[in-house]
Amino acid sequence: MKLYGYWRSSAAYRVRIAMHLKGLTFESIPVHLVKEGGEQHKDAYTELNSTHLVPTLVDEDVTLHQSIAIIEYLDDKYPSVAIYPKNIVAKAKIKALALDVACEIHPVNNLRVQQYLVNNFSLQESDKLTWSHHWMNLGFVAIEHQLKLNSGEYCFGDNITMADICLVPQVYNAYRFNLDMSKFPNICRVAENCNRHPAFIASLPENQADAQN
Amino acid sequence: MKLYGYWRSSAAYRVRIAMHLKGLTFESIPVHLVKEGGEQHKDAYTELNSTHLVPTLVDEDVTLHQSIAIIEYLDDKYPSVAIYPKNIVAKAKIKALALDVACEIHPVNNLRVQQYLVNNFSLQESDKLTWSHHWMNLGFVAIEHQLKLNSGEYCFGDNITMADICLVPQVYNAYRFNLDMSKFPNICRVAENCNRHPAFIASLPENQADAQN
Repeated sequence: MKLYGYWRSSAAYRVRIAMHLKGLTFESIPVHLVKEGGEQHKDAYTELNSTHLVPTLVDEDVTLHQSIAIIEYLDDKYPSVAIYPKNIVAKAKIKALALDVACEIHPVNNLRVQQYLVNNFSLQESDKLTWSHHWMNLGFVAIEHQLKLNSGEYCFGDNITMADICLVPQVYNAYRFNLDMSKFPNICRVAENCNRHPAFIASLPENQADAQN
Repeated sequence: MKLYGYWRSSAAYRVRIAMHLKGLTFESIPVHLVKEGGEQHKDAYTELNSTHLVPTLVDEDVTLHQSIAIIEYLDDKYPSVAIYPKNIVAKAKIKALALDVACEIHPVNNLRVQQYLVNNFSLQESDKLTWSHHWMNLGFVAIEHQLKLNSGEYCFGDNITMADICLVPQVYNAYRFNLDMSKFPNICRVAENCNRHPAFIASLPENQADAQN
């Protein structure tokens, strides 16, 4: 399997975590999102992924995009390390938390959104930080509340689930952009627990071949 | 079951379509997103949904948020009118298209994002339209490409799936905001086919009790 991604893309980061959790072997193919206007816009990539976004998974003759669709496909194909419990209520609550990151925080702060704000509405660098802090804060308040109710060692009880897979890359971004995390003790605790797991360590942006210091 | 929503919320609209497709009986409880600063911010609602967003499903003692998590919970509980095929590759492609709407178009154009742009970055009404057209166009170009490859009567072949459930409310918004849809013939054709189905008709914003003319 080939995973097209970028070391700092949190959507690609999610898929890496899921693949390492399941013990899957894959080749990482870097798509540089910034260099020369972004390799994700070049024909060689857009033929695989019409959204001009990473990640893309190529599994023999199957090409898939959207990180959550990719992860759930892998979970269907390789169910042995499940990312959801069998109980359908718990599964739905876990999925909702994953989507609180994937639908409410991440897309609004995505690179192309920030680029559009700067290029079309004359935002400054400091405005970009205000913008991204605002959406991370708002999302984390809602998630912290859910973790208070449901977390154990991980987001939901003591097993790693899709909620952890989506939350940890967002927490990584929060630290990267110096968000004050002191208001979110449960989020910090869960992320720390995850980050001791080999699958999460192997998936860290700085541990990717295309990482730039 | 009780569905807390708002007639014009496209996330609530998705859940209505899924519930009507499955022939489920439910009570619609309106949450006015604009009146008095928004009922979604009042304690009575945030106790059910910490994200301050609609929809919320209350199914006896189960309370769920995030439209896609709700729909997939209902699909687990009431599988008789399935929204995904059994084939895991087709399922993943359908989910990816649903997420192209739910992660890439809808969140960036959401009411609270547009309110934030106006209140914090002094955008004008015309800027809001430029903003929303930009993200709808970008998303629809990618989706139109997928429909060229995979659509039949509906987004993927001749059965209604999660892709249609997510696409149709976004197309409704596109028409509402006068987006030029002539570049997207497959999207228009599929949406028209969906909109002849009783489940989609019953779910239309203007057919809800809280619709305001």
